[in-house]
Amino acid sequence: MRLLAFLLLLTTGIIAQNLLPQPTKIESLNGEFIITNETNVLVSNPSVELKKYVSRFVERLQFKAGVYFPSIALRDTVTLNQITIVTQENIDSLFVGIDESYSITVTPEKIEINAANNIGAYRGMETLLQMIQVNENKSFVKAVKITDNPRFPWRGLLIDVGRHWIPAHIIKRNIDAMAAVKMNVLHLHLTEDQGFRIESKKFPKLHELGNDGNYFTQHEIQDIIKYAKERGIRVIPEFDIPGHTTSWLVGYPELASIQRNYEVATRFGIFKGSLNPTEESTYDFLDTLLTEMCQLFPDAYFHIGGDENNGMDWNENKKIQKFMQKNGLNDNNELQAYFNRRILEILHRNNKIMVGWDEIYTNDIPKSIVIQSWRGKESMFSSAKNGYPNILSNGYYLDKLENLESYYLNDPLPPTVELTPKQQKMILGGEATMWTEIVNEFNIESRIWPATLAVAERLWSQQENCDIDKFYKKAPSISLQLQEFGLTHLTFQDAGLKLISNNSQTQLWEPFIRSLEPVKGYRRHNFIRNTLKYSTTAALNRLPDLCFTESFVAFNFNKLAKTNCKDGHCKYRRDLMYWLANWAKSAENFQKISFLHPSLAEGHELALKVQELCELTWRKVNSPRELPEKDEERAKILIDEVENYKLDVRFAPIEGIKAIFN
Amino acid sequence: MRLLAFLLLLTTGIIAQNLLPQPTKIESLNGEFIITNETNVLVSNPSVELKKYVSRFVERLQFKAGVYFPSIALRDTVTLNQITIVTQENIDSLFVGIDESYSITVTPEKIEINAANNIGAYRGMETLLQMIQVNENKSFVKAVKITDNPRFPWRGLLIDVGRHWIPAHIIKRNIDAMAAVKMNVLHLHLTEDQGFRIESKKFPKLHELGNDGNYFTQHEIQDIIKYAKERGIRVIPEFDIPGHTTSWLVGYPELASIQRNYEVATRFGIFKGSLNPTEESTYDFLDTLLTEMCQLFPDAYFHIGGDENNGMDWNENKKIQKFMQKNGLNDNNELQAYFNRRILEILHRNNKIMVGWDEIYTNDIPKSIVIQSWRGKESMFSSAKNGYPNILSNGYYLDKLENLESYYLNDPLPPTVELTPKQQKMILGGEATMWTEIVNEFNIESRIWPATLAVAERLWSQQENCDIDKFYKKAPSISLQLQEFGLTHLTFQDAGLKLISNNSQTQLWEPFIRSLEPVKGYRRHNFIRNTLKYSTTAALNRLPDLCFTESFVAFNFNKLAKTNCKDGHCKYRRDLMYWLANWAKSAENFQKISFLHPSLAEGHELALKVQELCELTWRKVNSPRELPEKDEERAKILIDEVENYKLDVRFAPIEGIKAIFN
Repeated sequence: MRLLAFLLLLTTGIIAQNLLPQPTKIESLNGEFIITNETNVLVSNPSVELKKYVSRFVERLQFKAGVYFPSIALRDTVTLNQITIVTQENIDSLFVGIDESYSITVTPEKIEINAANNIGAYRGMETLLQMIQVNENKSFVKAVKITDNPRFPWRGLLIDVGRHWIPAHIIKRNIDAMAAVKMNVLHLHLTEDQGFRIESKKFPKLHELGNDGNYFTQHEIQDIIKYAKERGIRVIPEFDIPGHTTSWLVGYPELASIQRNYEVATRFGIFKGSLNPTEESTYDFLDTLLTEMCQLFPDAYFHIGGDENNGMDWNENKKIQKFMQKNGLNDNNELQAYFNRRILEILHRNNKIMVGWDEIYTNDIPKSIVIQSWRGKESMFSSAKNGYPNILSNGYYLDKLENLESYYLNDPLPPTVELTPKQQKMILGGEATMWTEIVNEFNIESRIWPATLAVAERLWSQQENCDIDKFYKKAPSISLQLQEFGLTHLTFQDAGLKLISNNSQTQLWEPFIRSLEPVKGYRRHNFIRNTLKYSTTAALNRLPDLCFTESFVAFNFNKLAKTNCKDGHCKYRRDLMYWLANWAKSAENFQKISFLHPSLAEGHELALKVQELCELTWRKVNSPRELPEKDEERAKILIDEVENYKLDVRFAPIEGIKAIFN
Repeated sequence: MRLLAFLLLLTTGIIAQNLLPQPTKIESLNGEFIITNETNVLVSNPSVELKKYVSRFVERLQFKAGVYFPSIALRDTVTLNQITIVTQENIDSLFVGIDESYSITVTPEKIEINAANNIGAYRGMETLLQMIQVNENKSFVKAVKITDNPRFPWRGLLIDVGRHWIPAHIIKRNIDAMAAVKMNVLHLHLTEDQGFRIESKKFPKLHELGNDGNYFTQHEIQDIIKYAKERGIRVIPEFDIPGHTTSWLVGYPELASIQRNYEVATRFGIFKGSLNPTEESTYDFLDTLLTEMCQLFPDAYFHIGGDENNGMDWNENKKIQKFMQKNGLNDNNELQAYFNRRILEILHRNNKIMVGWDEIYTNDIPKSIVIQSWRGKESMFSSAKNGYPNILSNGYYLDKLENLESYYLNDPLPPTVELTPKQQKMILGGEATMWTEIVNEFNIESRIWPATLAVAERLWSQQENCDIDKFYKKAPSISLQLQEFGLTHLTFQDAGLKLISNNSQTQLWEPFIRSLEPVKGYRRHNFIRNTLKYSTTAALNRLPDLCFTESFVAFNFNKLAKTNCKDGHCKYRRDLMYWLANWAKSAENFQKISFLHPSLAEGHELALKVQELCELTWRKVNSPRELPEKDEERAKILIDEVENYKLDVRFAPIEGIKAIFN
């Protein structure tokens, strides 16, 4: 059991430093606070909301520490063995730039969380939950003094519920996960060509006809907003206009720039359908609708999308062309700018700050807007210089399925940035974006987590505390812990594999699956069976759908090999060989069951190559000088074949194997 | 890979006979229908509801068969390669005794589902989905003619959302699972001492004060009812009165028999609090409330509980005693009978049929009620003889965590029953009951499934088609397939183990966990740490919470050993030894990580004993004559110790091991 011992060491070693996002300052003290069945919690002057948070905290504490508080753990008086939560102020309506700082002092006698307000206390409780340790004798927290505060005030996650429907209970448990890593903005992309996902009492045909039957009722959305607020998370709604509006035009074709038979889109891409920006009736409609929605969503910010309007229908409509001439609008960009100014008026009347994608940034737009940057940091810096507040999303696209490192290293304000401190303040933070073309209810959480951990730490932790190596050491463990909220980002894989194989012995071939990663970026969008394009109802149960975004096992293997191998001579040989044998064996097992489902059959040939390559590599590591030249050459051919294999999954340890043969 | 081959054989062998519940009649035909990307579906005169079912059917068909229908798969015309669904009638409001029969004819040319109505068609589509097979070359359905109809018209599942809150999305996916195995009644136990779980617009303090903050809004419950109806499942609400009403009395203490300070219960058991059956104001209240609820729930049946009213508060209230004297009510049973008759009047005015537990069956109660039998079959047969309709729940208590066999063999009308055919008709069917004292959101599905599969087949399939051996062969595979609805009855285990161990290498010790079963019956209720009793907020993350109800692996091992071993000489030695080695090794691994959480630590000593016992048994099977006598004796001591080990989990393969040593 050498291997087991090694792995456990890793695991338990991690626990002690498992703070994610990394706090601003940690000072070790002597001793430890022991959690027992008699431990209790005192909160000074709690609001109803803070009290609810603390109740959940107490339940989670019991779960993690394995203790059992026999009576109500919330006390009114100072006792021994107590966790005290002290706040000065109660914040009952959220805004950008709340003081989220807190401190935690742990001594053998007591634990104290201090925060200016309830929101800071929420952040502190999450840190404390990450600090619980267990050993043979007890559950405890090491004595320490932590002070912590966020680097950016806007740390968001966008979920696109338009393209694929994502129901409220999944949104809610992701809110829990966001709160656990101190994110504070949930951006709901509520409308798309494929679905208008919110009930409108003013224009009911929007939700009645503009989707596949799935939308949030106003009651449900209020419930989500309350759920988020109780965790210190703002909810920003996005109504994407004037493009991406096919679903609107099904019930209200009179809004369209060109009259045709509109149906809710079931394919993906950029569609022609677009609101007509030259008719006053369009603005009357939007005034009524947006006013309704501004009242539903209490946050001061309101997102109007504005991206990817291709303008083809505007070009075709002679009345629109005439309007442009008459009003001196030289091109579609200027027409959209005109549209945006009209929308801005509506939002201003509703006391909202307008947010939109890059495209809304035009010369004459007032500075009272916020630009969400999807195109790139250069344009973000330039608009920041011009005094516009910005949120970074470029580089945080979760649907590109990048490795965590790529998200982590994407600093909104890298050290090289040439902005004055005042201009830097214009960069409010960022948002990870979960677009759902090829993501559905079943696997969305595996696309959001653990990837979003990288964004969470990047946006909360001070620049000098961000360390990619340390991040990779703690991310797997934090990812596991998120399961306490019912997230399925890890369990979905085995469930999916069992479903398509009707096979309960998945553990025999799962290591092979876990060595795979979906191809990165958008190469997959047109892949399916080389000919067919995805639709909204396609089954997402192919290998890339069932792989984790990043293979942590491959990451560790690759790092070990790259750091420790030279001319085939490796340190940590036994660990490398363990994984190579594991992949060879599980790839062999996989071939035996791959006939069970067409989605598995797609990987059959790759598994064959992986098996052979891993066997050869095992022999190479085992005794580098004894591998015959023809095997050496065969390995190089296989490396090339595996690396360039035409499938939308890739065998991720290939880099480590290359390092071994170099 | 001998073992793998063996297991796969089992798995794929099962697929072909994977029909659960077993249909009435199956005739094999020649050939097979091949499912391709061009397969499509024709439905004759579909209602909106049938069309929705078919759309879901088409998506699930794609998922299972691994095909991809490029365009809309629903057609209006007859084509090649078609699945045709023919129904005569559309049933839009559900009742007891709907004709749920259907037939399926599969030929190489086409598949046809014939049913009298949409509900029969739903049942048929579920059967067809279970028939899909995949091999190296294709996805297909073997040519066959199936005719099928249910044995009992009432096939239910009760979920107690009172003691622990179970949210709507979990209820819904269990409705999906019920429909997949042709169950047709969801019984929601909505009120308990621990929670009043439904919004009342008439008496809002019921849901505002009578729970921990969790309840169904009326909108949500309507949504659940609609969801169930669209799957041919009736929803029966239960408002448990006059006992089990502590949560009612928090907001409306004037209803109580004794005035005291009522708080929502957080412990379990039978409480004193009881409605006062002697005040007219109580009936005014109930008239208003039940009328509101009768309108909310469209089903003709309405459940009033009536169980476990201990009458202590009635004894103590002098006014109640005086009332009894005055009205010639000799004891509390007669007083409760009086109460029930008053409630019956209210329900009759609302055109509802009253359902209640055994206790409502008193001499003079009209025969227009239904009795749900929890106490035993004898009393059920006796009331059936007296002309009362009955539903069996005795023997179907899921919270007792019995093995599936126990549920399966519990026939409401066993062959020995002495009832006339007319009296037999009084037995409407049965309901599995999921009480939630020590069951919460996290593990409830593992308590319901796969156990409820046994009840589903028992209540649907003809007596002569029920075969316990065949059932055990197909249940694991059907259980896997239920994951398509997002059920977590299998994945919760690994998630829970990873959570408490913060360990991603759970596979190294999971075989040991999977050899364990929670103790059966109610022995556990008072177990926790031998001293403390469970409360509603206790963490349910101890070993018995994380075990499957029944260990299928242990079942197979035990059967193999009992059938094939004599004096230590066994057939199938290699299979037996594989599992013994697996348990020994994983129990050893478990000991190494058991310090990671107190819930694991509880199993440390048992793991030590299991390891030693499995090692000895391995040696015994390997060469029965060579095991020294002292080891033989040691094994017998260990068998005794393991069998009587004081913990609320048991090592389930112990029976097989005993057989080996006998």
